[in-house]
Amino acid sequence: MAGDGSDQRALQYEQTLMYGRYTQELGVFAKEEAARLRDSGQRRSRALDLLEYDKGRCAKCRICTVRCQKFLISRVGEDWIFLILLGLLMALVSWVVDFCIAICLQAQKWMYGGLDSNVFLQYLAWVTYPVVLITFSAGFTQILAPQAVGSGIPEMKTILRGVVLKEYLTFKTFVAKVIGLTCALGSGMPLGKEGPFVHIASLCAALLSKFMSLFGGIYENESRNIEMLAAACAVGVGCCFAAPIGGVLFSIEVTSTFFAVRNYWRGFFAATFSAFIFRVLAVWNRDEETITALFKTRFRLDFPFDLQELPAFAVIGIASGFGGALFVYLNRLIVQFIRKQKAINRFLMKKRLLYPALVTLLISTLTFPPGFGQFMAGKLTQKESLVTLLDNRTWAKQGIAEDFDYIGHSQAWTHPQVNVFVTLVLFIVMKFWMSALATTIPVPCGAFMPVFVIGAAFGRLVGESMAAWFPDGINTDGTIYPIVPGGYAVVGAAALSGAVTHTVSTAVIVFELTGQISHILPVMIAVILANAVAQSLQPSLYDSIIRIKKLPYLPELGWGHHEKYNIRVEDIMVRDVRYITLNCCYRDLHNVLLTGHLKTLALVESTESMILLGSIERAQLQALLSLQLGRSRRLEFIRERAVGEKRRLSVASDTGSKDGGRRASQEVRFQISTEESTFSPVRPVSQKPLKPALKRPSVMEPPAEIPLSPDDNSGIALKNLFCATPEKEGLEKNNNVEPPELRKPSKRVRISVVDDADVEDDMTIREITEWEEQQLDEQVNFSNCKIDPAPFQLVERTSLHKTHTIFSLLGLDHAYVTSIGRLIGVVSLKELRKAIEGSVTVKGVKVRPPLASFRDSGTSSSENEATEIHKLWDRHKSMSLPQDHAPSESGEKTQ
Amino acid sequence: MAGDGSDQRALQYEQTLMYGRYTQELGVFAKEEAARLRDSGQRRSRALDLLEYDKGRCAKCRICTVRCQKFLISRVGEDWIFLILLGLLMALVSWVVDFCIAICLQAQKWMYGGLDSNVFLQYLAWVTYPVVLITFSAGFTQILAPQAVGSGIPEMKTILRGVVLKEYLTFKTFVAKVIGLTCALGSGMPLGKEGPFVHIASLCAALLSKFMSLFGGIYENESRNIEMLAAACAVGVGCCFAAPIGGVLFSIEVTSTFFAVRNYWRGFFAATFSAFIFRVLAVWNRDEETITALFKTRFRLDFPFDLQELPAFAVIGIASGFGGALFVYLNRLIVQFIRKQKAINRFLMKKRLLYPALVTLLISTLTFPPGFGQFMAGKLTQKESLVTLLDNRTWAKQGIAEDFDYIGHSQAWTHPQVNVFVTLVLFIVMKFWMSALATTIPVPCGAFMPVFVIGAAFGRLVGESMAAWFPDGINTDGTIYPIVPGGYAVVGAAALSGAVTHTVSTAVIVFELTGQISHILPVMIAVILANAVAQSLQPSLYDSIIRIKKLPYLPELGWGHHEKYNIRVEDIMVRDVRYITLNCCYRDLHNVLLTGHLKTLALVESTESMILLGSIERAQLQALLSLQLGRSRRLEFIRERAVGEKRRLSVASDTGSKDGGRRASQEVRFQISTEESTFSPVRPVSQKPLKPALKRPSVMEPPAEIPLSPDDNSGIALKNLFCATPEKEGLEKNNNVEPPELRKPSKRVRISVVDDADVEDDMTIREITEWEEQQLDEQVNFSNCKIDPAPFQLVERTSLHKTHTIFSLLGLDHAYVTSIGRLIGVVSLKELRKAIEGSVTVKGVKVRPPLASFRDSGTSSSENEATEIHKLWDRHKSMSLPQDHAPSESGEKTQ
Repeated sequence: MAGDGSDQRALQYEQTLMYGRYTQELGVFAKEEAARLRDSGQRRSRALDLLEYDKGRCAKCRICTVRCQKFLISRVGEDWIFLILLGLLMALVSWVVDFCIAICLQAQKWMYGGLDSNVFLQYLAWVTYPVVLITFSAGFTQILAPQAVGSGIPEMKTILRGVVLKEYLTFKTFVAKVIGLTCALGSGMPLGKEGPFVHIASLCAALLSKFMSLFGGIYENESRNIEMLAAACAVGVGCCFAAPIGGVLFSIEVTSTFFAVRNYWRGFFAATFSAFIFRVLAVWNRDEETITALFKTRFRLDFPFDLQELPAFAVIGIASGFGGALFVYLNRLIVQFIRKQKAINRFLMKKRLLYPALVTLLISTLTFPPGFGQFMAGKLTQKESLVTLLDNRTWAKQGIAEDFDYIGHSQAWTHPQVNVFVTLVLFIVMKFWMSALATTIPVPCGAFMPVFVIGAAFGRLVGESMAAWFPDGINTDGTIYPIVPGGYAVVGAAALSGAVTHTVSTAVIVFELTGQISHILPVMIAVILANAVAQSLQPSLYDSIIRIKKLPYLPELGWGHHEKYNIRVEDIMVRDVRYITLNCCYRDLHNVLLTGHLKTLALVESTESMILLGSIERAQLQALLSLQLGRSRRLEFIRERAVGEKRRLSVASDTGSKDGGRRASQEVRFQISTEESTFSPVRPVSQKPLKPALKRPSVMEPPAEIPLSPDDNSGIALKNLFCATPEKEGLEKNNNVEPPELRKPSKRVRISVVDDADVEDDMTIREITEWEEQQLDEQVNFSNCKIDPAPFQLVERTSLHKTHTIFSLLGLDHAYVTSIGRLIGVVSLKELRKAIEGSVTVKGVKVRPPLASFRDSGTSSSENEATEIHKLWDRHKSMSLPQDHAPSESGEKTQ
Repeated sequence: MAGDGSDQRALQYEQTLMYGRYTQELGVFAKEEAARLRDSGQRRSRALDLLEYDKGRCAKCRICTVRCQKFLISRVGEDWIFLILLGLLMALVSWVVDFCIAICLQAQKWMYGGLDSNVFLQYLAWVTYPVVLITFSAGFTQILAPQAVGSGIPEMKTILRGVVLKEYLTFKTFVAKVIGLTCALGSGMPLGKEGPFVHIASLCAALLSKFMSLFGGIYENESRNIEMLAAACAVGVGCCFAAPIGGVLFSIEVTSTFFAVRNYWRGFFAATFSAFIFRVLAVWNRDEETITALFKTRFRLDFPFDLQELPAFAVIGIASGFGGALFVYLNRLIVQFIRKQKAINRFLMKKRLLYPALVTLLISTLTFPPGFGQFMAGKLTQKESLVTLLDNRTWAKQGIAEDFDYIGHSQAWTHPQVNVFVTLVLFIVMKFWMSALATTIPVPCGAFMPVFVIGAAFGRLVGESMAAWFPDGINTDGTIYPIVPGGYAVVGAAALSGAVTHTVSTAVIVFELTGQISHILPVMIAVILANAVAQSLQPSLYDSIIRIKKLPYLPELGWGHHEKYNIRVEDIMVRDVRYITLNCCYRDLHNVLLTGHLKTLALVESTESMILLGSIERAQLQALLSLQLGRSRRLEFIRERAVGEKRRLSVASDTGSKDGGRRASQEVRFQISTEESTFSPVRPVSQKPLKPALKRPSVMEPPAEIPLSPDDNSGIALKNLFCATPEKEGLEKNNNVEPPELRKPSKRVRISVVDDADVEDDMTIREITEWEEQQLDEQVNFSNCKIDPAPFQLVERTSLHKTHTIFSLLGLDHAYVTSIGRLIGVVSLKELRKAIEGSVTVKGVKVRPPLASFRDSGTSSSENEATEIHKLWDRHKSMSLPQDHAPSESGEKTQ
């Protein structure tokens, strides 16, 4: 009966009378009439009611809609909605990837198992499968998005430092990374999932952010996006291991130098939600009965370890430290070896998929279970190895391996001929170099999990040795507490992965992965020792990759190096600063642009005062210069001259050789325009698929107001300028083993000679040169120029320590050193890096009074500034004197 | 016979022959001769040996010593030695404090237990003991170091922000805090140990740092000390709960806004070491068999909880959020109530120890076990309650409490008449207000532990209800997994303590305290929900105390408030900046100092240009002014005048009324000197024991070069100035309930009229005034003035979000807003605070393009700057013109 009255809304115009009668003369009408009416009328009435709304309340309705919309947008703009969506999405991705990997691995096992009649066929199946998968993964990634190669954590660290890496956060990269990773891990190679998941989560966040920005403007804020990326990194680790706390901490340690505690909250929220959904999916899929840890252990709770076992744990820590450093070194060595050997390099350049295939072939041949694999538990997948290594039973009872009945996968560790110790040692040694080699394959892959497994094996080895040495445990108080080798495996896993990544939070990850925290103190001690050793020997794996890939970075200040408090900015700064003055002419601009290569230039008041007013980007200055010497301006000049000549012509007739001059000019013009398009630095050639275009955003955006030169055939001086501009900070190579591709020549040789309609460009080269010389002598007008009015300033006495802090906090790449407003130097990332890495020697040991805080740093030094202010004061006096003598001139200025 | 022949080496000079004979003709000499020689010779030889060393190797020896010393110093200077020492020290302190508390509590139990014949005597013993202890603690702390009162975390947060709180890190405070805390906790009141331990660890670090600075200079670096304090906070929490990871995270969350990841390492290292030693001490003391968690739980590992129990955990989280906010509110309410009630206040001011005694009496009366205490497990100490609450057995089997056999302390929860649920509810309600009340007592105490226990009880209540509701567990898959109420208690404890402190890391602390991580997801979910609720209702307990104590703070940017991206500095800045120009005269200085109250003043080039050159501290300017108008200068003037007069006298004789003038001047002088010493702002009166003198270090240090005025009876203008100076940012009250003490008048009314020997101060008041007027017209000479040459600068378009980041990162308290070098405004902490707390309305919703980073922020706005630069340019032109016209004058200046 209620029906769809709204459909009848349109009756309004025909039945207005009917409606009126129904409401006003209700008492007069008979009941049946009423009932009859009710039947048909109610429908109509509703419709009419709505109609009335439409008429009268149309505005209200719209306001309501707008409000609803606004409310929705404001809700969508809230962080928590974003974080929940991100968590949900990543949990799904993680679960699906895991599911696919499991299927891939099962398929391999099934193939291998089904062919047990023929060893050769078995070998073929065992080897072909991973080779095909890895080759596919490498090829797919290469074609779709080469940025997806590798771990992704080094790149995220760079991005979170404020550097924009192009193409690293696009949908294509997302697809390439997810599919490439699934195939790579499905092959059973010793590769990890963690690093790529940090990248995938960041990709998700970036894409989600872009998607959500359709609803509200808040998603366009860049500093917010950076915060969201930081949270996304936490989600990545969190949903990979179902370890929310460890995920947050690990992501902080590997990606940040300084961390905002308010972000911490975001990370926790999203990572917890993600880990929760990830585990719930497992429960729903009937893999698990309830939410538990991924690699659950069942060590006894009452007496997890003896105090006297601690030295053994410390040994694991120290050995892991050396092992971790060795791993990083080995990984770098392989990459550099392949790069340096030109023959290999040239060969691999041509056959790009050969390297992955060869490496995979080698590794899978060695792990072939009936072959060498039988001595190193080759038939176990990474996950299975880890589960068996964390087993809480002792394998080597009393030193005799046969005593123990191996159940399930643990059987793989036993061998009729060799001891379990030999198996473990072989496993560790082989997997060590295999992992270091495998992580150089250009597929999306991480190194965390393989290292984790190797660490667990090493811990197990020590644990089994201890168990063999003390069969009844160490405790002498009557009760026998046998040693738990599984606990050692946990300690070893945390220590080695901590050493490779230079993080302490692997300890937390280990607790969350195993679901037991009983070994907290041994784990913490081992992780800290491993870190202490590894950090003093090698950079972390991620920093090593950053250096290999030549991404911009700022080395960490080591701890304990207290020289850093004694080095001051004045020791490291560049004193010969390129600057432009407020009253400079275009010629100065031209010269400055020709000589320096800095991206930004200081703007000072005048050469005498050197008061820093701001900084201007190189591109802005180039634009200014282009405008001054540009064609449109010249045409205007010609037009004016023509007007002047016309006047003159009316006085006297002139028969100059116009035609010849014009032809010459056109020749020149053509020549210039082709050269320009080849060298144009403002429009980067973007067709290079294998090179990440590394740029700060500021350089990217072309200035909006001023038309950039190269379209109009500007001048000769300009040409020099653009030719002199260096190639944009080229990154040498992106991927570890990837050969540098041939540079494709720019195809945009455009010959667009669109003349202004009213005048003709009839100047000869000599005329143009003369005109340009004239133009260059004019004073620069900065009115339309974008100036950064407050570039970051330091004081001479600022310590290296503080400078490092500020640079990493604010993500600077250069800062000016000023002394009471006067520019005296500049410090860039390069100088800072040099100073930290120790190529700068301090002039004597200066023990200066400590600086209370950055702001107060200026007050601790007095003599220098005293003289400086003297100078300034004198200058000021001498400058203000003329004013005093001529008060009429500047009278209106002095307030 | 081989003996110590080497000792005889030195006989050489006297006995060369003899010695030669001894060695060469050994066979010839009789054995008795050799024995005789050995006896007497050996002694001599030693002495001579030393002599020879002194003579010949003196230089080498010294070098060696110096090297050893240097090596030692360099080692001592290493961070890790410091951190190990700190960890060791804190572990010992923590263990000793725990030991003493345990003894105190045992003593109370013993007294109470021994008197079970007489209830009244029992009551008296039960009540007197805590009253005496708390009163002693309050009195002791009050007398020795009132700074030791309270938690200490709010103060540490302020100190880590860069503010120097005087007397907060002294040895006296350390002693007061340790002894006060031991007594307070020994009384059995619901007080915590965590907050004070953060303070104690910081005290330890500061003292250790001071001690270590005897060996090397590195310990004097302030920015290093701040880093060490941050690590110390982690140690404090870590050694209190034997929770290294949770300690680091908790300390980061409660004390920092931005955190350096390199510090994270330090915290982990020290906290782990400390926690390790703390637990090892327990093992050595035979309290424990091995290193385990403090409050070990033994929940089943295979099926910790059902997925369907999650809603119950979520309910705990949300309820805890409300509870936490209520606790903070209640705590603040009590403090404010006592402060506002003037009668109470006046009364308590007189009898300062009465309030603690009364509160203790009330609380201990209510917990008296034979009285009301029987309904709320009153006889259990805090630790015992927690242990019983985390018990993994179910108390309420099938809803009937009697079914369960209570063992040990768990018996306290049962009561013949009432249900276990009633006991729990009563416990929660009573402990809730008791804890809120007890933490206002002026003794060293924290609120974390009581809140933790209440949370555990609440969790237990929900858990027991669930167990009663689902006696066979929720799982429907055949196997019965009964519900574990202990797990609910863990969740509740983490959630409530997380809500009160606004931290997520309580989750980690809970895992480390219980030694089980199986409930990670419920705990994380509950903690996050609790935080979300609590953060939207109330500030954290520590922030609340910061506001109560009126410490300087910067409110956190809430999350989800995306307006912060739209508010710009230009919306909140103060445009009317007090500044001084480079060429100002002393009169301007005087006027500026008279009107403004800012601690620092901007120094600009001139009023027209407004180019910011630096900032000068108020004290510096006052010193400058004092110097100009000071007595020594006036005496010099008199001397000069006298010389001039003498010359004149030699021409004509002068018989002026010198005597009268002199008397008058002396009168004036006397009057001024008394007034000065009363109002002297430069030397703060430091005899106020109850007021923390809150100051930035810069204000504290009196400038070294310039003698500050008030000793010499300066001038009339100066007097005005110092009278006008406001009292130094007085903090209202330090302690929660403490009454403000009567201000003791300064006793330093000194009448020191030490005249220079050669001249007499013979000026009349009129003369002095005239002379001062003259002096005030002179131009200021800033040569000897300490200027901060690079004060922090912002741009108009900097967003509130970014400003907040920079302020909290760099610990600023003000920043100048400049536009191409021109000073246009200033933003201080106050404006920022106002803006964040929402009293500033944004002028319309401005959706501007996002700012890529702080450095780029300037480039996004163009029109404004274009006009600014125009002005500057014009100005520059007009200023440079006179120079051009007179090139001879400024010829030597233009490079």
